[in-house]
Amino acid sequence: MYDVVTLGETMLRLTPPNLQRLEQTTTLEVQVGGSESNVAVGLARLGLRVAWLSRLTDNALGHLITNSLRSHGVDVSLVVWTAEDRNGLYFLEEGKPPRSSQVIYDRAHSAMSRMKPDDLPVDLFQAHRAKMLHLSGITLALSKEANQTVLKAAQAAKAAGWLISFDVNYRARLWQAEVAASECDTLACIADILFMPLRDACLLYGMPNDPEAALSHLHQRYPQSIITLTLGTDGAVSLSTDGRLDRQPAYVAEAVGRVGGGDAFVAGFLFGYLRGYSIRQALQWGTAAAAYKYSIPGDMPIFTRREITELIESGYHDSLRR
Amino acid sequence: MYDVVTLGETMLRLTPPNLQRLEQTTTLEVQVGGSESNVAVGLARLGLRVAWLSRLTDNALGHLITNSLRSHGVDVSLVVWTAEDRNGLYFLEEGKPPRSSQVIYDRAHSAMSRMKPDDLPVDLFQAHRAKMLHLSGITLALSKEANQTVLKAAQAAKAAGWLISFDVNYRARLWQAEVAASECDTLACIADILFMPLRDACLLYGMPNDPEAALSHLHQRYPQSIITLTLGTDGAVSLSTDGRLDRQPAYVAEAVGRVGGGDAFVAGFLFGYLRGYSIRQALQWGTAAAAYKYSIPGDMPIFTRREITELIESGYHDSLRR
Amino acid sequence: MYDVVTLGETMLRLTPPNLQRLEQTTTLEVQVGGSESNVAVGLARLGLRVAWLSRLTDNALGHLITNSLRSHGVDVSLVVWTAEDRNGLYFLEEGKPPRSSQVIYDRAHSAMSRMKPDDLPVDLFQAHRAKMLHLSGITLALSKEANQTVLKAAQAAKAAGWLISFDVNYRARLWQAEVAASECDTLACIADILFMPLRDACLLYGMPNDPEAALSHLHQRYPQSIITLTLGTDGAVSLSTDGRLDRQPAYVAEAVGRVGGGDAFVAGFLFGYLRGYSIRQALQWGTAAAAYKYSIPGDMPIFTRREITELIESGYHDSLRR
Amino acid sequence: MYDVVTLGETMLRLTPPNLQRLEQTTTLEVQVGGSESNVAVGLARLGLRVAWLSRLTDNALGHLITNSLRSHGVDVSLVVWTAEDRNGLYFLEEGKPPRSSQVIYDRAHSAMSRMKPDDLPVDLFQAHRAKMLHLSGITLALSKEANQTVLKAAQAAKAAGWLISFDVNYRARLWQAEVAASECDTLACIADILFMPLRDACLLYGMPNDPEAALSHLHQRYPQSIITLTLGTDGAVSLSTDGRLDRQPAYVAEAVGRVGGGDAFVAGFLFGYLRGYSIRQALQWGTAAAAYKYSIPGDMPIFTRREITELIESGYHDSLRR
Amino acid sequence: MYDVVTLGETMLRLTPPNLQRLEQTTTLEVQVGGSESNVAVGLARLGLRVAWLSRLTDNALGHLITNSLRSHGVDVSLVVWTAEDRNGLYFLEEGKPPRSSQVIYDRAHSAMSRMKPDDLPVDLFQAHRAKMLHLSGITLALSKEANQTVLKAAQAAKAAGWLISFDVNYRARLWQAEVAASECDTLACIADILFMPLRDACLLYGMPNDPEAALSHLHQRYPQSIITLTLGTDGAVSLSTDGRLDRQPAYVAEAVGRVGGGDAFVAGFLFGYLRGYSIRQALQWGTAAAAYKYSIPGDMPIFTRREITELIESGYHDSLRR
Amino acid sequence: MYDVVTLGETMLRLTPPNLQRLEQTTTLEVQVGGSESNVAVGLARLGLRVAWLSRLTDNALGHLITNSLRSHGVDVSLVVWTAEDRNGLYFLEEGKPPRSSQVIYDRAHSAMSRMKPDDLPVDLFQAHRAKMLHLSGITLALSKEANQTVLKAAQAAKAAGWLISFDVNYRARLWQAEVAASECDTLACIADILFMPLRDACLLYGMPNDPEAALSHLHQRYPQSIITLTLGTDGAVSLSTDGRLDRQPAYVAEAVGRVGGGDAFVAGFLFGYLRGYSIRQALQWGTAAAAYKYSIPGDMPIFTRREITELIESGYHDSLRR
Repeated sequence: MYDVVTLGETMLRLTPPNLQRLEQTTTLEVQVGGSESNVAVGLARLGLRVAWLSRLTDNALGHLITNSLRSHGVDVSLVVWTAEDRNGLYFLEEGKPPRSSQVIYDRAHSAMSRMKPDDLPVDLFQAHRAKMLHLSGITLALSKEANQTVLKAAQAAKAAGWLISFDVNYRARLWQAEVAASECDTLACIADILFMPLRDACLLYGMPNDPEAALSHLHQRYPQSIITLTLGTDGAVSLSTDGRLDRQPAYVAEAVGRVGGGDAFVAGFLFGYLRGYSIRQALQWGTAAAAYKYSIPGDMPIFTRREITELIESGYHDSLRR
Repeated sequence: MYDVVTLGETMLRLTPPNLQRLEQTTTLEVQVGGSESNVAVGLARLGLRVAWLSRLTDNALGHLITNSLRSHGVDVSLVVWTAEDRNGLYFLEEGKPPRSSQVIYDRAHSAMSRMKPDDLPVDLFQAHRAKMLHLSGITLALSKEANQTVLKAAQAAKAAGWLISFDVNYRARLWQAEVAASECDTLACIADILFMPLRDACLLYGMPNDPEAALSHLHQRYPQSIITLTLGTDGAVSLSTDGRLDRQPAYVAEAVGRVGGGDAFVAGFLFGYLRGYSIRQALQWGTAAAAYKYSIPGDMPIFTRREITELIESGYHDSLRR
Repeated sequence: MYDVVTLGETMLRLTPPNLQRLEQTTTLEVQVGGSESNVAVGLARLGLRVAWLSRLTDNALGHLITNSLRSHGVDVSLVVWTAEDRNGLYFLEEGKPPRSSQVIYDRAHSAMSRMKPDDLPVDLFQAHRAKMLHLSGITLALSKEANQTVLKAAQAAKAAGWLISFDVNYRARLWQAEVAASECDTLACIADILFMPLRDACLLYGMPNDPEAALSHLHQRYPQSIITLTLGTDGAVSLSTDGRLDRQPAYVAEAVGRVGGGDAFVAGFLFGYLRGYSIRQALQWGTAAAAYKYSIPGDMPIFTRREITELIESGYHDSLRR
Repeated sequence: MYDVVTLGETMLRLTPPNLQRLEQTTTLEVQVGGSESNVAVGLARLGLRVAWLSRLTDNALGHLITNSLRSHGVDVSLVVWTAEDRNGLYFLEEGKPPRSSQVIYDRAHSAMSRMKPDDLPVDLFQAHRAKMLHLSGITLALSKEANQTVLKAAQAAKAAGWLISFDVNYRARLWQAEVAASECDTLACIADILFMPLRDACLLYGMPNDPEAALSHLHQRYPQSIITLTLGTDGAVSLSTDGRLDRQPAYVAEAVGRVGGGDAFVAGFLFGYLRGYSIRQALQWGTAAAAYKYSIPGDMPIFTRREITELIESGYHDSLRR
Repeated sequence: MYDVVTLGETMLRLTPPNLQRLEQTTTLEVQVGGSESNVAVGLARLGLRVAWLSRLTDNALGHLITNSLRSHGVDVSLVVWTAEDRNGLYFLEEGKPPRSSQVIYDRAHSAMSRMKPDDLPVDLFQAHRAKMLHLSGITLALSKEANQTVLKAAQAAKAAGWLISFDVNYRARLWQAEVAASECDTLACIADILFMPLRDACLLYGMPNDPEAALSHLHQRYPQSIITLTLGTDGAVSLSTDGRLDRQPAYVAEAVGRVGGGDAFVAGFLFGYLRGYSIRQALQWGTAAAAYKYSIPGDMPIFTRREITELIESGYHDSLRR
Repeated sequence: MYDVVTLGETMLRLTPPNLQRLEQTTTLEVQVGGSESNVAVGLARLGLRVAWLSRLTDNALGHLITNSLRSHGVDVSLVVWTAEDRNGLYFLEEGKPPRSSQVIYDRAHSAMSRMKPDDLPVDLFQAHRAKMLHLSGITLALSKEANQTVLKAAQAAKAAGWLISFDVNYRARLWQAEVAASECDTLACIADILFMPLRDACLLYGMPNDPEAALSHLHQRYPQSIITLTLGTDGAVSLSTDGRLDRQPAYVAEAVGRVGGGDAFVAGFLFGYLRGYSIRQALQWGTAAAAYKYSIPGDMPIFTRREITELIESGYHDSLRR
């Protein structure tokens, strides 16, 4: 019995140390990251029972990934292992202005991008085996097979009475905005909880760059879903199915590790939601988790429930914002 | 339902890199090691369901320990967390002749050394919750409380119909030979499987430095147990309860990480035993696992079942030995 | 003949590199730190003759500590070595907002915490063997024995005509405010020079959060002492025994290594004082030394007298403060 | 005007430090390696004019590769850059017995594996633009396109009057022995200089495990070529087109970096050959270069001509061999 | 045929990692830096054909320098190798306020400081072998021989119809302002392009601390030259031979690697100039290259032409400045 | 009052990690080494009072040297500091066969090489200020000034009744054998204790490659001195002034850090001698200290007196030798 199952691709992340450029470096730091597994780690560390479902090539790199997730308490027993394909990688070159951080994705032909609907574990999607399935738009973009696999999983979960959480998480490097909008729409239409940066709402749906207006439009299209827009340093805002609007400013953070902040937000929000907190409180957990993640190197939200609680209680917002 | 539960103390191991002396170093490599958890890691990586039971102080160092074990598939849900005491450490200075490797134990007052019989999880020791409990003499030496806790666990496991595996694992730095001999005797008398270096048999029991003679003596005292003597580069030898003697030469190995070799032997042997292999085969698995561990940095046997199988099949013994 | 003798505990400090969390790290940077030895290092590097008195376990870790202090010119010949106990450690996880730096003390049962009055070197406390004894409230908090040892040392030094310098240096992790206030009072009553953060004055003595008011109260209780309150980024303020008030703004600093800043302040102040400078100048040396320390990794004030002189002469204050 | 042009794939090599397993590591050392570029580096460092021809994806990883080759004096101006595909990687886990070194190739779908005959630089293959083209069997195995590209290059070079050097370099991970034998045959039939480990001669051509017998068979099939068999610690042996046999024992070496030893041999041999030395001397240069490479970390033969000269002059063979 | 030849000294730069002080460090990071070779690297990476001319001691340190430059595409075939003398070093201790970065030069008696006019390559200075010779005041300061060598090179280049670019680049550690002013004057009088920080103009020529006034004075003395003053965070300003003034504000940058920023400016400016861009555009390329360099560790401008183009197109200036 | 004063040059040693070549490395490990200071460190760690006398440039590199020696208990108060000159360096590239370790000395123009007789501390050379002065032939080779300084120190020490210890320590890189022989003769003629590798005896004095014959010749020329020849893996042999011959085989050692082994031998021997042990015992201390040093990275003999005692008591010689 899981609280949450997440499905997606996780990669090895290879980063030159000390703000070096890739062309300069003689070593790479190895980390593990993927949007859905980052969410899984966050949820597990906050105390929920979480499984991560994916497809991996059965070699030391694949086990490096599962070991890393398992070390934080994520159940990896659902992973589909194959002797074929390869495990995805990405090279992250961290930069400071005017040099922006640069990513070289090397995830084509990965085992996850070739996961087919039939690879989904038989018997997983039953009532009470989990409360929620969390998905992101990234997996939809990986390949046709992966896309179909996500849709099949979503339908099966829905049929089994699980909640569906969907994070649009648009990546311009993976697909075009119109395609993304169209493909994400299918999932958004059945999601119970929907996350989207305001920026993506604008890019994909042509929304106005105004949170309330954007929410209003989205609510008309996806009335069944609690919709949350993340606003960067302006925090986040949610519109519930009953039309209630909740706002939460961001917590101040120094960006030691910016990657994975959005996933930490999702983890914090879902934790609050599944614990039965109010949407306002779920937003607090989301923004606090995101801020805390910013202070942590790597992709994963390596925090404790107590640390997030204390941050929320400290009320440490940037008084200059909002 | 576990195959094996192990109980004992696990420490952070802090080692200067590149054969430096502690007085020279400005960095320490962090690893996690403990005899019983090393066995647990080996068993889990070979494919068994294993839990490690201990008591830890609830801080980042304690979680570093459980994360590390969990990453290899060991269940740490039985660990007893406390806000008191401290987590054990040891500093290992690796040396080459004539400078021998030196250990500074810093494990006094640790949370595990203060584990009391009442700290044992209620309801764990029931029929069918596990097949075997593995213990070592190290825990007996930690403190009076730890000693009593081990004995109570052994009795409860026995009562629940579990097998008892006991590794004498004498540490001259922790207690005196006579005391060790006397305390270990209690467990050896109820053990189903008993491990001991020949060296310890000589030191503790005044046995002759001859494997067969020593086994013969031990068999008279512990007739209920399969007794295995490890002989270093000479391999290992077992005497079954029916008096059958099995010998196995050592596999050739270059000692990259000598610490934990004995624990890898125990893991290999118990794996073979619990899979229903012959004692001769269990000895093969034990010696192969020990040799493979010697090639791996750190305390833990980070190998795969396939690698040990291939080593056994290659029959790669040092032809000059035996 | 020493200018200053300091007495206290010094620990190995173990820090994950690059703002990593302890749960993430595979290496720890090794440094040496302790309030009183930090002061000793600062004074020695500024040119005074300084000895550090403590009790250490005679192993490589203990010698790592004395070697490190000795490398900066501190005399460690007074150290009491024992085969018993252990050497104190602390794990420092450096953080950026909203994640604050976190310390795990592992100093219980240390050799210094078990130093007894009889361990003090016979014949040390004689006229002209030193000009000053520097102590801190931390040692009072370690244990009853350490507390008594400090008091005996203070009395013996006083009797030998040495000056007494006392830094309250309250650590909430080591003891409660009321106990600390009461214990520190004894030393403050005989101190010739007394240091205290304004924050401690408020916490321990219930002083108003106003430097002048607090000094006025403290002066009434400790009229024999030059009293200095440190005010963080607001600098420091001293009240002399004749009632004269001196203020000094802080020098601008980027906090590369915040730990040990207060000790560097003490070192700078005492250096100026013992060189016969005015209190105003001693405050300049203290604030300049503290600011310079902030830019240096580790606990110890690894600067030169010339560097501090140049900082004072540059008058490089933050014009936006005060 | 080049002395030698080599054509093939070069990868980033990622290696855990200090004999760690991939599953243990948090950093990877970055090196650059490929059989034909290793030969190019060796030749360039010995003083010849060398160009390396390949196809690379135009990102920082591709430039890391060309920068590295260029740093040793190899001309990379012939490289074909593309915005498509990816750059090949391999993960090398170095082991000690009984754990052998393990490689995870991640070179599928690489830019070089998709190089087509039409990608070859127009106008390169003209008389006098180079003296020799060096190829290896690895490139034949990469893909059908790469295979055709190699063949077209060989034919064009031949037509332009260049010499052809061909190293069979069989990799069981890339293709099957029968296929390899058949594909390599085409090149071997037009090669002027042919290299093969005796081991490959046995595997691919069913030769007897005897150097002279194998050479005799090969000479019948490839009478136009100087054929050299490398014999590992037994050195190397060459059969000239006139039937003259030359033998050279190996130089003693400690294997710090075994990868690339065969490529260093080829570089040494070709250097000697192109300088007009006797085959006996070319074998000396080959074996000396291979031995020297064994002492150097990474794939590339980072030696100087003087160092190889001195090794040859020292005559430092293992007297126990041969 | 080169676009630009630069002449000067390049050193190994040795830097303690992580803002450590030299007295604290146990490792030094090795980089390669020199004003004129930094310019060469920048120009080569932007796409020009560049050679660097110098004199080096023929050992591994010298080759480390040429390998490093060659890796970025700089031609080092003109370097004069000697068995005598030594290769220059500098130790850079990076600091944060109030501790400034400190340099220990260890370049006395270097091979370059002993380069004599006769060491200049015969036949280099001919029409059409290069378009431009770039020099800096640093080389003038190294020694009498080096000074004469620079002057001879400048005269020969001028005679061959090359352009002369001269960067005053005053270093107070190497010589006195009056001497520098006098020696630089000779080159400035024949330079076609002249660079100078406004600060140097004030120090050496007693100019007012006002860019336009300073330019006006300089123009009177060096009417043949395009004169560019760099103004730090205020950007740069050029006065053309026809009296036209161009200004360019600085791009915002976070100073990861401040060393080499001025050289990157020169590279950017000369690239624009030699491509036939307007002076206004050359200033843009210079300031953009300098800003980008600030974000890169080490001395060398490891950027691509596309990155600088994008920075210029983004128009990412600090709106608060100018 | 010192037991021993040593006089000589100490350098920073810069070494690429992990057997890398200098041309490959991006970091250098920093250590401190010099023959006479290595002896001083050994003697201090064994418990004697030792001062090291030298001349250093007053910058962070110079203080890095004195800090390092001071950390091991060596008195550096006699060091002569200067604002001129530079501090000596050497680059050590460690190799494995067939690549030998290679040294690039960068010690020309160092502060020590310019030490003049007048730089010697006034009043040092008085009866009872020390028992012994230790010198080596290296300093004689540095420069004419250094040579004269050594001679003056030796004469002054002799006049003050100190013993003179002299280690020939011939370095072919610093001077020619004939010159060395002639210059060393002066000191050997007044030495009370004389050390020389048998190899140097052959090279400098044309001695036969036979220890006893060589000693016999040397005894005739230097009858006043205890003469010790070191024989590498064959141990060492001493001839006393009374003609008594003592032999000592070497202790088995794995060469982790070969540099400094000879200096450790001298330290062990002198320690034994000054403690009044027999020459046979002094040879044991010398050979044990040398063997222990071989197991320690860096130049300095970082051992304890107890470790050497235990090695001597263990009698751990290689039974295959002698």
